Amino acid sequence: MGNQALRIDFQTEPSRYRHWKLKVDGEIATLLMDVDEKSSLFEGYDLKLNSYDLGVDIELADAIERLRFEHPQVRALVLRSAKPRVFSAGANIRMLAGASHAHKVNFCKFTNETRNGIEDLSEHSGIKSICAINGTAAGGGYELALATDYIMLVDDGAAAVSLPELPLLAVLPGTGGLTRVSDKRRVRRDHADIFCTTAEGVKGQRAVDWRLVDAVSPRSRFDETVRERVAKLAATAPRKDGPGVHLPALDVKAGGDELKYRHLHVAIDRAARTASLRLKGPSGPPPADAAALRREGSDTWMLRLFLELEDAICRLRFNEEEIGVWLVRTEGDPDRVAAHDDALTRLAPTDWFAREVLLLAGRTLRRLDVTARSLFALVEPGSCFAGSLLETALACDRTYALDDPDRPVALRLSPLNFGALPMGHGVTRLQARFPQRPEALEALRKRTEDGEPKHFGARSAVEAGLVTIAADEIDYEDEVRVAVEERSSLSPDALTGMEASLRFPGPESMETKIFGRLSAWQNWIFQRPNAVGEHGALKCYGRPARPAFDWRRT
Amino acid sequence: MGNQALRIDFQTEPSRYRHWKLKVDGEIATLLMDVDEKSSLFEGYDLKLNSYDLGVDIELADAIERLRFEHPQVRALVLRSAKPRVFSAGANIRMLAGASHAHKVNFCKFTNETRNGIEDLSEHSGIKSICAINGTAAGGGYELALATDYIMLVDDGAAAVSLPELPLLAVLPGTGGLTRVSDKRRVRRDHADIFCTTAEGVKGQRAVDWRLVDAVSPRSRFDETVRERVAKLAATAPRKDGPGVHLPALDVKAGGDELKYRHLHVAIDRAARTASLRLKGPSGPPPADAAALRREGSDTWMLRLFLELEDAICRLRFNEEEIGVWLVRTEGDPDRVAAHDDALTRLAPTDWFAREVLLLAGRTLRRLDVTARSLFALVEPGSCFAGSLLETALACDRTYALDDPDRPVALRLSPLNFGALPMGHGVTRLQARFPQRPEALEALRKRTEDGEPKHFGARSAVEAGLVTIAADEIDYEDEVRVAVEERSSLSPDALTGMEASLRFPGPESMETKIFGRLSAWQNWIFQRPNAVGEHGALKCYGRPARPAFDWRRT
Repeated sequence: MGNQALRIDFQTEPSRYRHWKLKVDGEIATLLMDVDEKSSLFEGYDLKLNSYDLGVDIELADAIERLRFEHPQVRALVLRSAKPRVFSAGANIRMLAGASHAHKVNFCKFTNETRNGIEDLSEHSGIKSICAINGTAAGGGYELALATDYIMLVDDGAAAVSLPELPLLAVLPGTGGLTRVSDKRRVRRDHADIFCTTAEGVKGQRAVDWRLVDAVSPRSRFDETVRERVAKLAATAPRKDGPGVHLPALDVKAGGDELKYRHLHVAIDRAARTASLRLKGPSGPPPADAAALRREGSDTWMLRLFLELEDAICRLRFNEEEIGVWLVRTEGDPDRVAAHDDALTRLAPTDWFAREVLLLAGRTLRRLDVTARSLFALVEPGSCFAGSLLETALACDRTYALDDPDRPVALRLSPLNFGALPMGHGVTRLQARFPQRPEALEALRKRTEDGEPKHFGARSAVEAGLVTIAADEIDYEDEVRVAVEERSSLSPDALTGMEASLRFPGPESMETKIFGRLSAWQNWIFQRPNAVGEHGALKCYGRPARPAFDWRRT
Repeated sequence: MGNQALRIDFQTEPSRYRHWKLKVDGEIATLLMDVDEKSSLFEGYDLKLNSYDLGVDIELADAIERLRFEHPQVRALVLRSAKPRVFSAGANIRMLAGASHAHKVNFCKFTNETRNGIEDLSEHSGIKSICAINGTAAGGGYELALATDYIMLVDDGAAAVSLPELPLLAVLPGTGGLTRVSDKRRVRRDHADIFCTTAEGVKGQRAVDWRLVDAVSPRSRFDETVRERVAKLAATAPRKDGPGVHLPALDVKAGGDELKYRHLHVAIDRAARTASLRLKGPSGPPPADAAALRREGSDTWMLRLFLELEDAICRLRFNEEEIGVWLVRTEGDPDRVAAHDDALTRLAPTDWFAREVLLLAGRTLRRLDVTARSLFALVEPGSCFAGSLLETALACDRTYALDDPDRPVALRLSPLNFGALPMGHGVTRLQARFPQRPEALEALRKRTEDGEPKHFGARSAVEAGLVTIAADEIDYEDEVRVAVEERSSLSPDALTGMEASLRFPGPESMETKIFGRLSAWQNWIFQRPNAVGEHGALKCYGRPARPAFDWRRT
């Protein structure tokens, strides 16, 4: 799987889809999965039976994103298959067997983020989803269904849902299956145990009794039942006004060591194994009202910036595996960032577009939280770490600030730091930073009130706990250089495990259980000879050889 | 590390300790760490600088257990070192570098359980603990301190706490360090990030400012300050009456394929890779009152049974790595089990000994919950899956019951199923079984009330959700045989990951974050070439060769 050589592109749009059809019929959208066997992302495998690789999921993620922005009239979504008697065979096994460890892990992370996006669509955008399973939904196919609100299964004595990864491949379901079965569907643990160790899965009434699906229906009445159910769901969803906002292609200029977007510049230093991400603040005032915001449309600063950041995160994760430290910088006027934050915060309760922009920013920041790279924020003169952009620093493992009286920096808070952009475990980055120290948090919140001083200099930001280390003009460059060099010298794996642990103190949610707990087990198993060794199950799958296991339990 | 050949024995007592001294002086107990370099459990390394291996931790676990039962007058515990200017260098690195993956993982699990035991001592037995750090507390040495309630550090310009695992060895701290730093000590994430990547650690006032320790004190006043602080802690702790209960050696007869205890019989089938654990119910009526319970002392059925089960769990985990499926059976009178449960439940609020017996049962059941083996309970004629023993079945991945009208089985509930024996995430096994289905739980609770039918037969236990599958006398044996054979044929690693995920639906606690999330990352990293490969940091440590890393991030 030559994913070192191939630069994966995450930009697409419906007319270029090879695997999905997005149909919008009034209030109902249908995503039809019809994977083109021959259009795999890499060589060496065919995408039979609606099995998928990253290329298929990039289209799905794009379709879900467009649904939010381009089709506000949609109130319910149906996922179904265009293939007869098969919904989806899940992630392509030959692709997995041939992929590097890093690609497998990042592939699972991306598909998880797409599934979280479907749940976010339901929870925050009011678009409920149904999965209509017309045949086999195996592994990742069933995991896709698990991301929807309501699962319907044809009852024909053959159609079944299954998670056959463990018995067939000696790995775990890669896209949150175990956690969604236990924590979302609330399948009893012994039923889940049988289900996850039974390759052929569960069908018919037992699938309902065990809570694996919500309803079964004979094939003759299946389409009608799905239509009825979707109509009911749509009727309960909120209505949204006005035309959609078209999401344009991001005109990224991607050179060997650079990604140039409108508001984001990424520069890679291969020798140092670092990437510099420079985010630009808005160049003008915020939109005065909902109409002005709509006129800005896809040129809205915050929308564009976070779409660009999302694209850059995905590219760097997959295409630049050795670039281990990301340095986050900003450039612009902090007061202007705060003004844009304020405008969107004010409009969001009544304007779906403003709300969707904030939801996108939230999802992108959560991608940053779970990115397996060391993240350092650098607060330097001319920077604008305010509100939504301050969140990028709060997502970092450390923040360094230059403390130079001649060229002072200014950080500031906005209402967006206090709720609208939560981490995956449901708390804000400030709450996670000051666990159970509500007085520190309250002191910060007060600084957003009228009449309070808004700006934090380098020293006062350290005192307030927003910045890790401030250094004066004599020491700053060396301090940062040494810290980055040290970080770059440490084991990538150990850093990944440490960062995944330290970034999420406190409570857990289904999302953090998937990214923290389940992913870690999965990574472990993806390394074990019983899965990926010469005689491992993943390697032997589809060949005459039977896997040979080392029976030692840990 | 020939831990395949060596049968590790978990039984010890203070006169046999080689590494610890347990001193009790009135209300204050002191555990003095004085590791004997030459008394390592395996060949090939010396336990220098109070570094430890499993043998050292077995003594510590024993001492903590005896403190509970044998020294009820103790109200506070001090952990300190007998070595000058070093508290502990943590887990012995050469031991780790030479150990099998399975031994490393089980070693970390056992040491975590010992640390949890220290916290349980504080939370549930009212014995608060202080760690008095007189010099270096590195890695596992600092993690031991993290398990106590109050950490004091000498302030002499040299003494420091550190977690150098990542920078020195390219692994994660193995005994909950990351989670306790973030979730117990509530160290801010950027400070934690610096701390965990700085080999030399943090000392003096900064250690206090960053919440890594509670207080520092100059060496000249250190002992006095520790004494004052301990006296204060002791004064707030509850008093317990009467003499202690001596914990006798368990007279286990360990043959090659058998472990014979008084109330527990373990038989191993090596060909099938299964172990049968047969737990025996009480042979007589329960103690009538606290005085009668005290007369029974260490012969108390529940105490003895769970000590034996604990011992067997540890032996099987370490000494029988290939025995992947444990079959849990019981033998006795379910009503008598319930009567013993009732008696202890009644006595516990006013009698410390009754309370300690229940706490021990709870800890042992939690060991079962996190054991990386498939657990099947078999409910057969003559069994006594009631109350405390029903919990062993509820801890299992599946339960099979024989449904034979001629030889009916009887399961029953007791008050112990509804609170006193929680899982590591703070909910009962019944709550975890019926997540957010309070009506199912309430129906079960009602069955413990006077006048309600107490016994569940095989069918009614299936209907109530207590049993997974009931099969009649024609099918039962085949059903179980096939299920066990199938289970035994699956990949041990994948099963470990699946079981760790499915056993803990719902909320998370520090304990489950350590065993689920952190352990999984650690297991992953323990497999990675960057740690354990030929040029990995763990392998290179102490040699002239520098580690060579694969820089790809995942």
